[in-house]
Amino acid sequence: MTGAGAPGAGTAGTTALDPVIAARLKHDAQGLVAAIIQDDETDAVLMLGWMDDEALRRTLTTGRVTFWSRSRSELWRKGDTSGHVQHVRSVALDCDGDALLVRVEQIGAACHRGTRTCFDGGELPTATGIPEEPRP
Amino acid sequence: MTGAGAPGAGTAGTTALDPVIAARLKHDAQGLVAAIIQDDETDAVLMLGWMDDEALRRTLTTGRVTFWSRSRSELWRKGDTSGHVQHVRSVALDCDGDALLVRVEQIGAACHRGTRTCFDGGELPTATGIPEEPRP
Repeated sequence: MTGAGAPGAGTAGTTALDPVIAARLKHDAQGLVAAIIQDDETDAVLMLGWMDDEALRRTLTTGRVTFWSRSRSELWRKGDTSGHVQHVRSVALDCDGDALLVRVEQIGAACHRGTRTCFDGGELPTATGIPEEPRP
Repeated sequence: MTGAGAPGAGTAGTTALDPVIAARLKHDAQGLVAAIIQDDETDAVLMLGWMDDEALRRTLTTGRVTFWSRSRSELWRKGDTSGHVQHVRSVALDCDGDALLVRVEQIGAACHRGTRTCFDGGELPTATGIPEEPRP
């Protein structure tokens, strides 16, 4: 138990997220933004996590993806328990500041179930659209 | 103005989302789940939107991606104003039920700024991680 503190709070010995970046974030009611994790090698979307400012700061500065766990209310660095580490390759913020795209080198499975992505096996029945006209 | 109603509410003349699917969703406090939109041709992550049950129902049954707008508090079908339609190719729900991965044929730009994705130009300075050992 590391006592990570409330979302947005720093931890002893760390510095705050760059205020220029922090000002661009549009947090939800819990102080979080969504973080889409994409495999930098295969382009597969691996999972969606959540980051408070401190999780984003650690992700940007340490080379390891760190999330805020909404269920456990604590910071968690991906792979510390499972070994399934995510090494950061790039991070981009979207146009309205509420979503991050984090490209990673994924070691092992991204999902706690052991599957490569958290979407494997979750396909929903879909009426796929047929464009009215050929794509230019 | 179409008066789309509150999140989760159906609209006159429509039916409800399949209750088996609805039961698998883990909504946030606003009744929404995150929807990652990925280009089915290039695998680029285009944007992140939000869906209530009715937006998901329409997405699954009509072949066109529909979102819930958190800022305007109404349903919006992507492309109705801009022409930048998203034709659904597949939809998958993640392991904990709070995120959807929607693969689409994107017509034109996904972002309202005219860029291909909402993450273009949003790169943040990152200390990329170097794995300690070569990948197997």
